Amino acid sequence: MNEIIKQLGSRKSIRQFTGEIVSQEDLELIIKTAQRCPTSINGQQISLVYTRDKDKIKQIAEFCGGQQQVATADVFIFVCVDFNRTIFAVEQTGEEHQIDKSAEGVLVGAVDAGIMLNAIQISAESLGYGTTAIGAVRNEPAAIIELLGLPPKTFPIVGTTIGVPTKEAKNAPLKPRIPIESFAFEDKYDDKKVKDGVLLYEKQMKKFRVDNNMNYLQSYCEQTAGYYKNIYFRKIEENYTKQGFVFKD
Amino acid sequence: MNEIIKQLGSRKSIRQFTGEIVSQEDLELIIKTAQRCPTSINGQQISLVYTRDKDKIKQIAEFCGGQQQVATADVFIFVCVDFNRTIFAVEQTGEEHQIDKSAEGVLVGAVDAGIMLNAIQISAESLGYGTTAIGAVRNEPAAIIELLGLPPKTFPIVGTTIGVPTKEAKNAPLKPRIPIESFAFEDKYDDKKVKDGVLLYEKQMKKFRVDNNMNYLQSYCEQTAGYYKNIYFRKIEENYTKQGFVFKD
Repeated sequence: MNEIIKQLGSRKSIRQFTGEIVSQEDLELIIKTAQRCPTSINGQQISLVYTRDKDKIKQIAEFCGGQQQVATADVFIFVCVDFNRTIFAVEQTGEEHQIDKSAEGVLVGAVDAGIMLNAIQISAESLGYGTTAIGAVRNEPAAIIELLGLPPKTFPIVGTTIGVPTKEAKNAPLKPRIPIESFAFEDKYDDKKVKDGVLLYEKQMKKFRVDNNMNYLQSYCEQTAGYYKNIYFRKIEENYTKQGFVFKD
Repeated sequence: MNEIIKQLGSRKSIRQFTGEIVSQEDLELIIKTAQRCPTSINGQQISLVYTRDKDKIKQIAEFCGGQQQVATADVFIFVCVDFNRTIFAVEQTGEEHQIDKSAEGVLVGAVDAGIMLNAIQISAESLGYGTTAIGAVRNEPAAIIELLGLPPKTFPIVGTTIGVPTKEAKNAPLKPRIPIESFAFEDKYDDKKVKDGVLLYEKQMKKFRVDNNMNYLQSYCEQTAGYYKNIYFRKIEENYTKQGFVFKD
């Protein structure tokens, strides 16, 4: 098994850090390496804003709903959709940028941000660091837009912590995933397999918490319901619109 | 430099394939490995539908606007947002799923799809295959939804080709990226650096095509304008709505 399969296959989110620093050299390498990942039409409509300022990181943790895992990270990186860049590029040709005024624009930015987020994390993990993706940067977008000085046509869509993992976090057992036959299908989606998979996974997750003395862990259905019975981040559409995006067509 | 940094740092999209097959064993390993990547709230709101059926792949290429790189791939994988799974999970607790009716739901699905796409590609590349991300699965969403038998609350948001790269494709020069100082910022976004970066990159891309006898290559501003002066995929919002999603709040 090659090193990459080994790393990806044992990946876990790291939420406890030792407090040791991410070296500046490593951080630069992570950013540089991640920049090689693909973007739609090579538009490079992503910008990163990172901070290692501990006061700012604590403030970001508050904006993210008070997350200790964010507050204790050594570095926080925001992955921002950046049509400010492409608008300027399009202007150079005398044309007018339209994609930001469409659902396609919203999606292409979000997918590219996800791609970049994963590349940052894989790169960081290969250097021995731990990360967790933070969707809660969408909890208070206006505050983050102000903090980072983001201009119109940009949006802080996802973020990641980086830090040195504690031994306990590193050695924590791998959480099971839904059964693979309910996740990947050849040729046709199979609704029955999806539903059977949820029911089986629910049992596996309940067994997992017993086996690992993780009584605090919610089961899959409990955790999913806990979040998805609410629209937990309510200011997305409002703030997207304020930043000049439109979801239509 | 470790193997992972080396692979990520020399990544390129592969659009020419030898016609050799992706082994079934490798395909299963790619899918299994990629499944370890994170999803928001561990919701696992992603399903994959893949095909190695050559007729289907040709049909997919047509739906994607007639792309030869798709038609000649050995495997095509769709990364689908799948709230059908989480709706069923939430129902098990007697609660009602709400997130699909919000902008947050649209975004969380798109970001998670991007994360998964990148994990699939990195895994495939580590095994010696080549890939290109295909956003054009959003060109004819209704046709793809029908082809894959996707139920309501799911959406085929991005895809990837996988195949064995030709030597020429593998050895092609790495395309430059925008200057790193215009891509990643400490603490604050810098509009001037973004714009200066576009202008410098434009020159670099023009030099790159001369240096590498790639006269067919568009410059950054030309290519970006070529796509983004139009809303090139117009049926996104319509088809999202048909699949039961709402972008509001």
